Amino acid sequence: MQLGMIGLGRMGANMAQRLMKRGHALVVHDTRAESMADLQKQGATGTVVLEEFVSLLAKPRAVWLMLPAAVVDSVLARLVPLLDAGDIIIDGGNSYYHDDIRRGGELKTKGLHYVDVGTSGGVFGLERGYCLMIGGEKDVVEHLSPVFASLAPGGNDPAAPAVAAPGKSTAPLGYLHCGANGAGHFVKMVHNGIEYGLMAAYAEGLNILRNADIGLRSHEVDAETTPLLHPEHYQYSFDLPQIAEVWRRGSVISSWLLDLTADALNDDPTLSNFQGRVSDSGEGRWTAIAAIDEAVPTPVLSAALQERFSSRGNADFANKVLSAMRSEFGGHVEKPASKT
Amino acid sequence: MQLGMIGLGRMGANMAQRLMKRGHALVVHDTRAESMADLQKQGATGTVVLEEFVSLLAKPRAVWLMLPAAVVDSVLARLVPLLDAGDIIIDGGNSYYHDDIRRGGELKTKGLHYVDVGTSGGVFGLERGYCLMIGGEKDVVEHLSPVFASLAPGGNDPAAPAVAAPGKSTAPLGYLHCGANGAGHFVKMVHNGIEYGLMAAYAEGLNILRNADIGLRSHEVDAETTPLLHPEHYQYSFDLPQIAEVWRRGSVISSWLLDLTADALNDDPTLSNFQGRVSDSGEGRWTAIAAIDEAVPTPVLSAALQERFSSRGNADFANKVLSAMRSEFGGHVEKPASKT
Amino acid sequence: MQLGMIGLGRMGANMAQRLMKRGHALVVHDTRAESMADLQKQGATGTVVLEEFVSLLAKPRAVWLMLPAAVVDSVLARLVPLLDAGDIIIDGGNSYYHDDIRRGGELKTKGLHYVDVGTSGGVFGLERGYCLMIGGEKDVVEHLSPVFASLAPGGNDPAAPAVAAPGKSTAPLGYLHCGANGAGHFVKMVHNGIEYGLMAAYAEGLNILRNADIGLRSHEVDAETTPLLHPEHYQYSFDLPQIAEVWRRGSVISSWLLDLTADALNDDPTLSNFQGRVSDSGEGRWTAIAAIDEAVPTPVLSAALQERFSSRGNADFANKVLSAMRSEFGGHVEKPASKT
Amino acid sequence: MQLGMIGLGRMGANMAQRLMKRGHALVVHDTRAESMADLQKQGATGTVVLEEFVSLLAKPRAVWLMLPAAVVDSVLARLVPLLDAGDIIIDGGNSYYHDDIRRGGELKTKGLHYVDVGTSGGVFGLERGYCLMIGGEKDVVEHLSPVFASLAPGGNDPAAPAVAAPGKSTAPLGYLHCGANGAGHFVKMVHNGIEYGLMAAYAEGLNILRNADIGLRSHEVDAETTPLLHPEHYQYSFDLPQIAEVWRRGSVISSWLLDLTADALNDDPTLSNFQGRVSDSGEGRWTAIAAIDEAVPTPVLSAALQERFSSRGNADFANKVLSAMRSEFGGHVEKPASKT
Repeated sequence: MQLGMIGLGRMGANMAQRLMKRGHALVVHDTRAESMADLQKQGATGTVVLEEFVSLLAKPRAVWLMLPAAVVDSVLARLVPLLDAGDIIIDGGNSYYHDDIRRGGELKTKGLHYVDVGTSGGVFGLERGYCLMIGGEKDVVEHLSPVFASLAPGGNDPAAPAVAAPGKSTAPLGYLHCGANGAGHFVKMVHNGIEYGLMAAYAEGLNILRNADIGLRSHEVDAETTPLLHPEHYQYSFDLPQIAEVWRRGSVISSWLLDLTADALNDDPTLSNFQGRVSDSGEGRWTAIAAIDEAVPTPVLSAALQERFSSRGNADFANKVLSAMRSEFGGHVEKPASKT
Repeated sequence: MQLGMIGLGRMGANMAQRLMKRGHALVVHDTRAESMADLQKQGATGTVVLEEFVSLLAKPRAVWLMLPAAVVDSVLARLVPLLDAGDIIIDGGNSYYHDDIRRGGELKTKGLHYVDVGTSGGVFGLERGYCLMIGGEKDVVEHLSPVFASLAPGGNDPAAPAVAAPGKSTAPLGYLHCGANGAGHFVKMVHNGIEYGLMAAYAEGLNILRNADIGLRSHEVDAETTPLLHPEHYQYSFDLPQIAEVWRRGSVISSWLLDLTADALNDDPTLSNFQGRVSDSGEGRWTAIAAIDEAVPTPVLSAALQERFSSRGNADFANKVLSAMRSEFGGHVEKPASKT
Repeated sequence: MQLGMIGLGRMGANMAQRLMKRGHALVVHDTRAESMADLQKQGATGTVVLEEFVSLLAKPRAVWLMLPAAVVDSVLARLVPLLDAGDIIIDGGNSYYHDDIRRGGELKTKGLHYVDVGTSGGVFGLERGYCLMIGGEKDVVEHLSPVFASLAPGGNDPAAPAVAAPGKSTAPLGYLHCGANGAGHFVKMVHNGIEYGLMAAYAEGLNILRNADIGLRSHEVDAETTPLLHPEHYQYSFDLPQIAEVWRRGSVISSWLLDLTADALNDDPTLSNFQGRVSDSGEGRWTAIAAIDEAVPTPVLSAALQERFSSRGNADFANKVLSAMRSEFGGHVEKPASKT
Repeated sequence: MQLGMIGLGRMGANMAQRLMKRGHALVVHDTRAESMADLQKQGATGTVVLEEFVSLLAKPRAVWLMLPAAVVDSVLARLVPLLDAGDIIIDGGNSYYHDDIRRGGELKTKGLHYVDVGTSGGVFGLERGYCLMIGGEKDVVEHLSPVFASLAPGGNDPAAPAVAAPGKSTAPLGYLHCGANGAGHFVKMVHNGIEYGLMAAYAEGLNILRNADIGLRSHEVDAETTPLLHPEHYQYSFDLPQIAEVWRRGSVISSWLLDLTADALNDDPTLSNFQGRVSDSGEGRWTAIAAIDEAVPTPVLSAALQERFSSRGNADFANKVLSAMRSEFGGHVEKPASKT
């Protein structure tokens, strides 16, 4: 089917490409003409003029936004007046589900349909397909099912595009209508919250392995340093790339994230190209806030989020307070930088 | 090659079976004759008499123990006097790596070789193969490589048993010599620590999804209950089995544990057959202790462990202390059992 | 000075009483006449009619609200139309500081002044005085300083009411102008967040002491139960009331919360009158959310909050997911209810 | 009574001084003569020769060790052969309670008595008195009660030394016989574990207050930075020294640690003399391990400990793993150092 796509960054361009390979007609729009060049060579119709973009779409129009969350509202402000009742807007980016609820309501008053789609798969989605979590009206989501089926992994085979059997769930194909507006991004938000937890679990475990040689290192003996009681228990110099690799094979903790971790460690066992300043892009925070609103305990997901905050130095002042207290009550003097 | 195996519970029996299918000769021993019956039908030689078991093995003997950690030492006390210098004992269970270090040292004085093997794969290992993390002397581990290759997933194809190319890592085949004695169980210990973290991440995320309908429920209004400021944000009744299923398809959080979770939710979306009292079998605790000894921060892995302690009611007294304090300073009276 | 007070629950009545003892003229209002009876005997003017209440106050009026956060807005809706430009409304309850910012702005357009006051001290405040954290316009706060000084501990001595020296901080007296509207409740919010952390620290520590006899108890030996490696290290039957008492005397962890804890344990060492279902009344959640917005790591404060969620059974579903996973991959069967 | 004291660092010298002021006869020993000079001026008998030290003590001798935990065993090795049956050794330092159990047993075979004393109070103990948590034989502890009473706060008044009424608890005086050997240091260990939690609670809360101005700062807008949705909620520039001060007055969170914190912030509101590398001296780790052994959940105490590990850079490798994963699946590039 025909689909308009606005926003041709890494994710949007890959998705447009995947859709065209599966026979869909893409009309694309980006403010930077160079972002569209490759797609145009592959058959997309492209224009930097938003009005022209809209006019190229058959009614009811379906417009997929693949934009940073922070600019969606400003693009909508320009796009919506150009659309007609019955048209559909799909937000496939990382919007906060609160915004979906608000937008869905606002657009409904104008006769427009809004669909929120949480998209997972990263840069590998082009080949592997994208996992799609969808919120919106049931019949609108069904109308768009050819697009979802082609983006999702179940539609990998161009010769045999997957279509869900009537009445059967589409989940095994890799896309799912999760509920009303906001449901798609809510599920994606929690997905990312879980992702933080999984990543932290591997990272902490690998850090334990990496320091299993602590008994081989020399240690200071002073009142500020806890002695290592049993150095004979920490005499291992583990080969992390090999261990990550073997865990991929038949273990309970095998996963796609572990596949990627093994790959990264194989490239550079010490990960020396990274500083360890870990960004967080919103969903992890929103997950933590949703859990608080629901009074659901999330010790692991919250800890994973806060580990990222700490990685960026944001605990520094709290730590200074601790050192100041220790200085006050015990006369403890801070030790200079050195681990353990 | 010939292998003796002691302990034919679920894990041991499956491993013996897998080895025989791949052409190895199994001599098995268990104190319960009925545990050996099936294996004997499949070609194993079995005996309830330990002395006979030993006599049936060709030197240098290789004896694999697949026993609860708590009984390994008592079995060793009976087995060791029957063995000869050059024989090999493999502990494939869940021993604490401290014990491996001790045992390796003790057995060495008797001319015996000790190999510790952390085994992951659970009940599915019979078909999928086991991920093996191995500690011990290099040449002894190499001597046993036909056994390891057959147990590991890389040896899945009976027609083409995988053998690591000389000088190449065996990790892609699913087994790895990780270091000296204790290294195998150390790596397996951390593996399980990570497992706890991964499991908790999924469990917490699903709990958030399950409570996304909190805005649909009625709430008490009193000074002891935090009001839900935005019930309109929590109006979702999510289908957890479908969501777990769709996440398996192309998402960043796909994993084998997620496959199992989707399966369990599909069987029973409310998991009503479970009470939620979660055992912990040692490795998670040992991982946490190793991290403390190494001064490695493990907020996620520790939280996952403690969540299990709490699931068994072990926080009850601490919670009573909190209620008592609130009663003291604010005259707060505990609310009767009801969630919020 | 003259002060109107609306809301004569436990906190409001005590505060009115303390103010009268220090010479202030109180006009009180509550919808329940019986709430005012005692105060009237002590000299307060009281009325159940809001209009009469307002008419009894001299301009510029000062009206202190001591109400549950959830009803403040509805009371304001009725009160505000009765007031005149220049009048002052003080919210001394536990409002969310977001609401203060909004209300301050709204009331300003009507020429009214709004002051938010976070109040700590609980039921003991009547005698000990209240710690007051104040947000609002500087000159309005100064105008009210006789009231604040009398409520705060520094004003304990009726014969010598404390007044801050000009240009000196009032903090040592127990009240502080913290900033613009919302500042008072922001500081109080964080105060309560800290309170959760302090309480949890004591509660967890006492729980460790209480279980220091675990080596004296018998233990199951099975694959689902981690063996206690060194029962000889856990042979202590500690007297918790005595320990809490001794810690009050000269230790680094002495505090008012510890005083209360010792008192509660002295009354009932097993705290058997409590179930351990711990409410949370909002500020702890808001603190956690503020920390997330600021990207400030709060592992301790968040853990304390989530411990409360767990105490009310809100982790149950997550724990069932864990048990279901364990059943899937390892065939683990849940153990019946029994601790450890 | 007469007491021998070995180890005259900051703690030991202060304790000796406090005891002499209350009429006890001190015989002191340190390998550095200059450590004893001041005490000798105040009336102590001192010698650098251990044999002479022992000979100066009347039988049954009472020898108090105030030494770093790491050197206690080596001092005992030299001291014990010089003692006679019935003599008493008191370890008032920060020994691991496991060592107390072992030492108590070993010394008993020689007819010697061992008493373990956890001591809290820091540099202020000289004036305020020390909180003493005591493990050992009941009659031996009673024999030493004049010493304990003088060290504890209850014995503050030289003119009226506190003595517990017969049959009454000594806890209100500030010392307590907690149980058999190890009990004193076990209770002290948990005391310090709690201390970590309390300290972290204040530190995290102050860090939230300090960053309440985040809405006033400019922010980058990119896909790696979570936008601050409501900058209008974070416009506060709080005066931390004043807030810490006001909290000391009548609030629920008043404590001695808060007194010290207010003092430190008053000296330097930005704590710029500290780097925030926070040591941990053993008890916090041992507390966490005891909790794991007991299966007692300690989310707050554990988080506080791990925050200290992180403060020393020990999470760096784990954070690099996170960045590496993000780079793999999403092509995310690390942002350069800058908070938020």
